[in-house]
Amino acid sequence: MAYDTDNIFAKILRGEIPSEKLYEDDNTYVFMDIMPRADGHCLVIPKTPARNMLDATPEQLAACLATVQKMGHAVMKAFEADGVTVQQFNEAAGGQEVFHLHYHVLPRHAGVGLRPPGKMADFDVLKQHAEKIRAAM
Amino acid sequence: MAYDTDNIFAKILRGEIPSEKLYEDDNTYVFMDIMPRADGHCLVIPKTPARNMLDATPEQLAACLATVQKMGHAVMKAFEADGVTVQQFNEAAGGQEVFHLHYHVLPRHAGVGLRPPGKMADFDVLKQHAEKIRAAM
Repeated sequence: MAYDTDNIFAKILRGEIPSEKLYEDDNTYVFMDIMPRADGHCLVIPKTPARNMLDATPEQLAACLATVQKMGHAVMKAFEADGVTVQQFNEAAGGQEVFHLHYHVLPRHAGVGLRPPGKMADFDVLKQHAEKIRAAM
Repeated sequence: MAYDTDNIFAKILRGEIPSEKLYEDDNTYVFMDIMPRADGHCLVIPKTPARNMLDATPEQLAACLATVQKMGHAVMKAFEADGVTVQQFNEAAGGQEVFHLHYHVLPRHAGVGLRPPGKMADFDVLKQHAEKIRAAM
């Protein structure tokens, strides 16, 4: 399947639409999920095009995973979490909604389930959560 | 948190308990999940100790992800799947049950949800599914 250069995350990378940025390095970019399934839910993406894991290069995968690890530690510290769930969806049947490779990083607390998908965040709260994560890095 | 050398996957790696093996290379080992949430649900683990992503080395993460990608293609081909879901759990609150780093690779079909967790597979069926995946690699 081809890479669509007009997907939302490509537009975020080009600065055409805003995002609540948490971190970036040469190869990856991290921002808040606007429909968070847990407080601190963030997304790690490569800066270069990849539809999903299936067409990604080893370099893209390695770079993403290094940043996923970094963000895992950051969100655990920021939210005093007990664990982290990582999800990565490939193609619509696999759960993918935006067709630019991305890893979901979700801080978790014992006994607390993920919230149902699809509910938009309060943007003031999202900004406060982003501040906490940036302060923890 | 420390690595417990008596966890089930460490025992599988040492050959002390059986597993339905799909693939191995110098750094990773792949076998069928015995409580599959989808037909073809398999697990990718590093051969060296890591409790989970939080204490893994960049080399372990990169090796796992290369194998996760390989298995993603294999399970899609074997089951004529439409997508793949990848999950990776860290600590009990994050969903982790065995404390050796592992990636869940789940072939997905459009409109078909994951089965609930915790139900043991029929081992004859599991072996047939494993054959299909090995044949697709």
